[in-house]
Amino acid sequence: MEDLTARERFLRACRGEEVDRPPVWLMRQAGRYLPEYREIRARASFLEACADPELAVEISLQPYRRFGMDAVIVFSDILIPLTGLGVSLDFAPGPSVANPIERASDLERLAGDVAPAMEPTCEAIRRLRAELGPEVPILGFAGAPWTLAAYASEAKLSRDVERLVVSSYTEPSFLDALLDRMAEITTRTLELQIEAGADAVQIFDTWAGVLSSPRFRRFAGRALARVIEALPSGHPPVILFARAAAHLLEDLAELGADVVSVDWRVDLADAALRVGQRVSLQGNLDPAALRASPATIARAVEQLVEAGSKARGHVLNLGHGVLPTTPIDGVRAFVEAAMRARG
Amino acid sequence: MEDLTARERFLRACRGEEVDRPPVWLMRQAGRYLPEYREIRARASFLEACADPELAVEISLQPYRRFGMDAVIVFSDILIPLTGLGVSLDFAPGPSVANPIERASDLERLAGDVAPAMEPTCEAIRRLRAELGPEVPILGFAGAPWTLAAYASEAKLSRDVERLVVSSYTEPSFLDALLDRMAEITTRTLELQIEAGADAVQIFDTWAGVLSSPRFRRFAGRALARVIEALPSGHPPVILFARAAAHLLEDLAELGADVVSVDWRVDLADAALRVGQRVSLQGNLDPAALRASPATIARAVEQLVEAGSKARGHVLNLGHGVLPTTPIDGVRAFVEAAMRARG
Repeated sequence: MEDLTARERFLRACRGEEVDRPPVWLMRQAGRYLPEYREIRARASFLEACADPELAVEISLQPYRRFGMDAVIVFSDILIPLTGLGVSLDFAPGPSVANPIERASDLERLAGDVAPAMEPTCEAIRRLRAELGPEVPILGFAGAPWTLAAYASEAKLSRDVERLVVSSYTEPSFLDALLDRMAEITTRTLELQIEAGADAVQIFDTWAGVLSSPRFRRFAGRALARVIEALPSGHPPVILFARAAAHLLEDLAELGADVVSVDWRVDLADAALRVGQRVSLQGNLDPAALRASPATIARAVEQLVEAGSKARGHVLNLGHGVLPTTPIDGVRAFVEAAMRARG
Repeated sequence: MEDLTARERFLRACRGEEVDRPPVWLMRQAGRYLPEYREIRARASFLEACADPELAVEISLQPYRRFGMDAVIVFSDILIPLTGLGVSLDFAPGPSVANPIERASDLERLAGDVAPAMEPTCEAIRRLRAELGPEVPILGFAGAPWTLAAYASEAKLSRDVERLVVSSYTEPSFLDALLDRMAEITTRTLELQIEAGADAVQIFDTWAGVLSSPRFRRFAGRALARVIEALPSGHPPVILFARAAAHLLEDLAELGADVVSVDWRVDLADAALRVGQRVSLQGNLDPAALRASPATIARAVEQLVEAGSKARGHVLNLGHGVLPTTPIDGVRAFVEAAMRARG
C-alpha cells in the first residue's frame, strides 16, 4: 500500500478498495482565495477563462502546484454546456439568464449539441493529461438535470428554486420534458470529458435538497439515474454531490453513483451507517473551518478520516466549495493533515 | 371531543392532549397572496404596517375572515425588535441592514429595551383579543438568537449565512456575546407578547439549518435553550421552527419547546418516530403544493393528518410560509380539508 499513485489512490477509494490513506482534494480548489487566480481574472472574465484552454489549464494547475492534492479538477462551470445552446448566460458574479426556459415552446432553444461549448474544457483536460502524466487523476464534472433546469428556468434563481418546484405541481409534463432534455445534456457533457481523458466525473446537484424524498425520486433522482445509466459501460467513477440534502442520503446512494459527496451538515460516520456498502463517501469539512488554526484543522481532518473509515471508501474533501475569503494557510493545513493520515 | 374551541384545540395539540382534529393555520397566512393585503401595502410600507396597530390588526384578521383557520398570528416581523435598537433596517423586499453588527464594539448599539419597538405589535395583540374573544388563539412570535444575529451581522444576508458561520471559527467569543444579547432580545420580545395576551408563541430559527449538529448545539441551540428557560413559569406553548433542518430534528426536540415545526423536506411520520413523545409536531405541506388541484391538496392533507397521528400532537400547517403566488383557492382547499379531518 506504500506505492500508490494519486490516481490509483483516488480510483481505489471511489470503488471502495483498500488505500494507504484517503485521497484529498477540495471542491472549488481553483478559485478566488488564490492570488494567482485573481490575477488571471483581473484580465479575463469568468466565461472567457472557461473558454480559453490555456487559461483553464493554468487555473486548474494553480492549486495543485501549491498543495499537490490527489486530484486536479478541470476549470469550467456547470452552465457552460448551456451557453452553446439558446441560453444567454451572464456571471456577475452569480449566474443570471437573459432568456429563461419557461414553457414547452422554449425547449426547442435547448436543441443542438453541447460539444462546441464543451470543446475548450475537453481540450483543457487533454492538455492537463499531457502536463500531469498518467499518475494524477483529472476530474471532469457536470450539473445535474434538476440543477441545470433550476438555473435555466429563472432569470435569477429564487431561494428554494421556487419556480421549478411550483412547476412540479402545475406543469409536471413540462418539467419532465425539461428534465429529459437536461439529462441528455448532462450525459453528453460527461461523455465528452470522459473521452477527453477524465479519470472520474462529479455531478453537482446543488438544488436537489429543496425537494422532499418522494419528490426527489420522482423528478431530480429519476433524471440523475438516467444520466448515470446512459454513460458508456466501464465508465470512470461517478461522484454525486447534493447540497443541503441530508434527508436524501439514502436516495442518493441508490442512483448508480460510485461516491456520494455529503455536505458539512451531515455527520460522516452517521452517513456511512446510512448508506452502508452501496457507495463510497466524499467530504465533508465545513468550508468555514479553514479559517481556524492549523492545529484545529488537523484535528478536524483526523476526526473525518476516522469517521470516513466506517464508509466503503472515503475521498477527503470539504462539504462545499472553498470560500473566497479562505486563507491559503488553511487550505495548506487541510491538505497536509490529509497527507499525514493513514486510512 | 365535539365541543372544543379553536383555542382549546390548538393548546391541547401543542401539549399532546387528545383533540377532535388537528388544529390548522398557515405560516405567513397574512400576506401578498391576498388582494386585500396588497391593497393595504399599496398605501403603507411593510415597516409602516408593522408599526400601526390598526393596520396590523386588519392584516392579521384578513385570512381568518376568509378561511376561519384555528389560529390568528399577529402581523409583525422578527426584525422589528431590532429596529428600536441601533440597527437600521430596510425591506426592499428582503431585509437589509445599513449598519451591521460586525465586532464587539458594535454590540453596544444593541443595548436598550425592545419594548417601544414592540408596542404596536403588543397593542395589536390586545386589540385582536378584544375582537376575537377568548375562543380563538392568538400567536406571537420572535426570531431565534442565531437568526437575528445572522440578519444583524451582514448588510445583505449571504447564502448559508457565511459571515456568522465564519465568526464561529474565528471569533467565537464575539459570537457568544452576540448570541447572548440576541437571546435576551428574543426572550423579551416573547415576554411582551405573552403579557399582551398571546396564547402561544413561535420562534423562527430560519438559518439554524446551515449548522452541523455539534455546532448547532454549541451556538444556536444553546442560545435557544436559554430563551425558553428564561420565559416565565407556566408560559404558553412554544413552537420552534427551523428551516432546512432535517439533520437537527433530535436537537430541536431537546430545547424545551412544546412543538417543533418541520419543513416540507421532512417526512412527518419519520419525524414523529425520531422525536418520540418529547414534543408535538407542526407542519408540513410543501407551500408549492397549494398550486395543485383542490382534490390533490385534500389527499395531501389526509396523508399529513395520518402521519401526524403518530406524533405526540400535531398542528397542521405548511412546511414554510405561504408563497406570494399562491392561489386563494389553494389555501381554501387546505383549510377546508383540514377541517374535515378527524384526529
